[in-house]
Amino acid sequence: MYRSHNCGELNISHINKEVTLAGWVQKSRDKGFMIWVDLRDRYGITQLIFDEQRTDKSVIEKAKSLGREFVIQIKGTVIERVSKNPNMATGDVEILVTELTILNEAQLPPFTIEDETDGGEDIRMKYRYLDIRRNPVKNNLLFRHKVSMEVRKYLSDQGFCDVETPYLIKSTPEGARDFVVPSRMNEGQFYALPQSPQTFKQLLMVGGMDKYFQIVKCFRDEDLRADRQPEFTQIDCEMAFVEQEDILNMFEGLTRHLLKEIKGIEVNKFPRMTYDYAMKTYGNDKPDIRFEMKFGELNEVAQHKEFGVFNSAELVVGIAAPGCANYTRKEIDALIDWVKRPQVGASGMVYVKCEEDGTFKSSVDKFYAQDDLKKWAEATNAKAGDLILVLSGNADKTRTQLSALRMEVATRLGLRKSDEFAPLWVVDFPLLEWDEESGRYHAMHHPFTSPKPEDIKLIETEPGKVRANAYDMVLNGNEIGGGSIRIHDRELQSRMFDLLGFSKEEAEAQFGFLMNAFEFGAPPHGGLAFGLDRLVSILGGQETIRDFIAFPKNNSGRDVMIDAPAKIDDTQLKELSIKLDLK
Amino acid sequence: MYRSHNCGELNISHINKEVTLAGWVQKSRDKGFMIWVDLRDRYGITQLIFDEQRTDKSVIEKAKSLGREFVIQIKGTVIERVSKNPNMATGDVEILVTELTILNEAQLPPFTIEDETDGGEDIRMKYRYLDIRRNPVKNNLLFRHKVSMEVRKYLSDQGFCDVETPYLIKSTPEGARDFVVPSRMNEGQFYALPQSPQTFKQLLMVGGMDKYFQIVKCFRDEDLRADRQPEFTQIDCEMAFVEQEDILNMFEGLTRHLLKEIKGIEVNKFPRMTYDYAMKTYGNDKPDIRFEMKFGELNEVAQHKEFGVFNSAELVVGIAAPGCANYTRKEIDALIDWVKRPQVGASGMVYVKCEEDGTFKSSVDKFYAQDDLKKWAEATNAKAGDLILVLSGNADKTRTQLSALRMEVATRLGLRKSDEFAPLWVVDFPLLEWDEESGRYHAMHHPFTSPKPEDIKLIETEPGKVRANAYDMVLNGNEIGGGSIRIHDRELQSRMFDLLGFSKEEAEAQFGFLMNAFEFGAPPHGGLAFGLDRLVSILGGQETIRDFIAFPKNNSGRDVMIDAPAKIDDTQLKELSIKLDLK
Repeated sequence: MYRSHNCGELNISHINKEVTLAGWVQKSRDKGFMIWVDLRDRYGITQLIFDEQRTDKSVIEKAKSLGREFVIQIKGTVIERVSKNPNMATGDVEILVTELTILNEAQLPPFTIEDETDGGEDIRMKYRYLDIRRNPVKNNLLFRHKVSMEVRKYLSDQGFCDVETPYLIKSTPEGARDFVVPSRMNEGQFYALPQSPQTFKQLLMVGGMDKYFQIVKCFRDEDLRADRQPEFTQIDCEMAFVEQEDILNMFEGLTRHLLKEIKGIEVNKFPRMTYDYAMKTYGNDKPDIRFEMKFGELNEVAQHKEFGVFNSAELVVGIAAPGCANYTRKEIDALIDWVKRPQVGASGMVYVKCEEDGTFKSSVDKFYAQDDLKKWAEATNAKAGDLILVLSGNADKTRTQLSALRMEVATRLGLRKSDEFAPLWVVDFPLLEWDEESGRYHAMHHPFTSPKPEDIKLIETEPGKVRANAYDMVLNGNEIGGGSIRIHDRELQSRMFDLLGFSKEEAEAQFGFLMNAFEFGAPPHGGLAFGLDRLVSILGGQETIRDFIAFPKNNSGRDVMIDAPAKIDDTQLKELSIKLDLK
Repeated sequence: MYRSHNCGELNISHINKEVTLAGWVQKSRDKGFMIWVDLRDRYGITQLIFDEQRTDKSVIEKAKSLGREFVIQIKGTVIERVSKNPNMATGDVEILVTELTILNEAQLPPFTIEDETDGGEDIRMKYRYLDIRRNPVKNNLLFRHKVSMEVRKYLSDQGFCDVETPYLIKSTPEGARDFVVPSRMNEGQFYALPQSPQTFKQLLMVGGMDKYFQIVKCFRDEDLRADRQPEFTQIDCEMAFVEQEDILNMFEGLTRHLLKEIKGIEVNKFPRMTYDYAMKTYGNDKPDIRFEMKFGELNEVAQHKEFGVFNSAELVVGIAAPGCANYTRKEIDALIDWVKRPQVGASGMVYVKCEEDGTFKSSVDKFYAQDDLKKWAEATNAKAGDLILVLSGNADKTRTQLSALRMEVATRLGLRKSDEFAPLWVVDFPLLEWDEESGRYHAMHHPFTSPKPEDIKLIETEPGKVRANAYDMVLNGNEIGGGSIRIHDRELQSRMFDLLGFSKEEAEAQFGFLMNAFEFGAPPHGGLAFGLDRLVSILGGQETIRDFIAFPKNNSGRDVMIDAPAKIDDTQLKELSIKLDLK
């Protein structure tokens, strides 16, 4: 063993102890007669002292040669520091070094290994192994480990069985694009990497394994939006002989357990809201409910006056920004510019200041009386001192725009606190959504989702109105998990594939094995999956999943550290019976 | 919730309780006035009773329609059985059914869902979801879960951090064949699926994460021997600032923990033997030491007599089969035939019976006196009643043959007991092995393995004699884990690549990122990986890893259940810029 202790554990109780430490040189200060070196490892930093009076000359000489990030091993005695550092766990002591071994030298790193580094994203990704030495990244990885362990512990204690499902499976054109893997042994054929273990977990239910979980990598060959990864990790779960209520309770329990064990926060029973309510009230199916600003619909009180813009709008809807009545013209203009940006796309914004004296001052004063504006305030739940912001137009688009504005205002007001956690369930999602491009319905969740039994009668007549037994868990404005009760009946599954535009042959070729399985005694079942990357980053109080992944890829799907993907040998291609077909 | 209890938990303490159960019909017996149904779920079997006297006629009628593997839900009352079954956890009670709901009907399964099934391997793989309903398979999966959880618990408690490494990495021609994944976004380029996270775990060490583990899927596109899978699971571990001894102790601890927690067996400190000793003493680098039969080399005592076969042999070597002196001519001939099979390849076998009266009777009596044979008995540690079996010829081949014979004899004698566990470490492996085909040295473990410091001087002069800091853990004749201390120095790593026939350019293109990393302060490090599939099957007392994998592939790498791999669409190929190039 290269060390008797690590660099984070020595304190005043170890005084006079002979110790051996190993780690990296964080920095050194050479005062000529005395040299201090901060020695760093995963556990902390310990100060070393080399002193002309007390340390061998040869050791001093060697110490003078040390550069940043050199890997060294030292032996020495724990002594009390003259000037203590109360901000460090080891700040009361230092090590008077007697022996120094350089285990490995180091080139100067291309960025500073400090909590706040001077390295940009690109260089840090290329040298990710150096980035991981920095506390923020290292702590994120340790945090992720802790979350994973707690997830496993909770689910295992609840009787869930961790089952590994295969990674080399079959491509299905439905959904996102698959990554495929040419098979050498089966010429001209390909495996696909799983977008999720969906069908396998359903087959496990058919197989009687009534509580399954797995923390598993999934793959999607999508054009990467910011903060998406081609490979990502799911906490994948499924249960048999359950109804939606059972699943909600089980995974609410898991999330409550995590919040308590990881963050020390006790959360009450999660609120539940329907998809319709969420869309009407927050313009969004993943509302951030850490703050209010619920939508107030204003059609009744704002239309049929002289203001043509509102009169011609399908929807007039507003929110009350708390305490913003004193916004200057400039601040309000900034918000108007913000909603007019192409990314949001509103054509304008009306505002009403709710003055402290009970009066109102708005950008549409010439069309609306004080009494009218009072009704707006009631509808948006605005109080004296608030600022009502109103958008109008096509209902769906306006809701989306107002939702974006609501989040922006909350951010500006500091209402999106990273140490506050407001989970909820959104339920009763539509089964299907209409896709303009392909001119047909798509499964909103996936084709295995069960319609609500009472809505099945609508499937042929009004498919858009059929609600699903589908649910999302939302945390702080992010969907962190989603799932559904599944179809477990061959006939219904087959009707579903019809509805989604699969031919009988396609359905059979792609999912025949699942529909066959349903004929051999499939139990009622359902489940859900959490996005672990996202869950961990939110629990960690951050927004970027990349910071919680050891070796992430960039937006072109490249690992810039190892420089992958890369060309492969012609002999490899030949063995796989494929050749390049470059555009 | 579809059930108040599961099918494994009701007993005499629940008498008169109203319960709801759900599960599969294991079997039913219809006596006309009474029907018994065995209801099965993951947890056990509970007997249901439908009785003309006490059950509604409509319920009886429905019960009569039940077929095997129907999924049903029942309500009823727990009553005491008239004839109890002490072999079942629930054998004291039965449920007098009042309500019966058929949740899903079932076709007759293609094989019986019993512990001993009538289904062959192929049909069971095609309907794996039915096979999983059988106790032996289900219990294997639950067992695997338990082992995984204990592994994670132990390592996490020891300060190891579970870090997920990427699955989409870069192909390296060294080692086994890679599975590759064409990149749509990077035309003409490919990812590779990892054969192991080797380089990433080393980079984590460079990154200061000094104890890493991961239970992770790995991929090898090999022609599949029996009981190999193209995707398999490793317990992958790495530590920094450690020497070989630290690693051996840590993972001996893990294995001891598993044996204790999973099997209730306390094992002493593991024996260690060098590779050379193992090869000489067992003819094998993964000796099964549950039994003796160590090799006795007989050159000194068997050569220079009249027996030409031995005189011309490089090696004459024997084992003493315990208590087999009374083997008949027929039994011995069977062993001779066995060693002469092409799979073993010996040209013949000499035997010596060690009679109870202290005399010897051999197949070579005319060449050897009793005193000669006595020396053979001493060399092979044979006792009265044993049968000495002797092979001769080329040293390496003969050792391999005798090793096979040793295992065969042990199997015939019932010495390979599945409930006995004899782990050991084999250490001091050679760094390199000569490959006749390519006419150059290959890394015996992998190119990152460190030579023993005292042997480095031999690298250029006698590379075949250089020993590595490499070690295998062996359990009951199987290598269950292996690892090494790694090179952490760019210069040595570069020499190693030279030795293995890499050009500078190849080494740089494939492993440049790792060698660069070594220049930024790489700590001394090493690790190992266990094969989880194998470990679990041995701990489970079985030989076949396939039985411990939920959805295994067959010997052609096919998943016959989902029928993968399969053809993919031309549009998919086009998007990936590849086309088929069939032979």
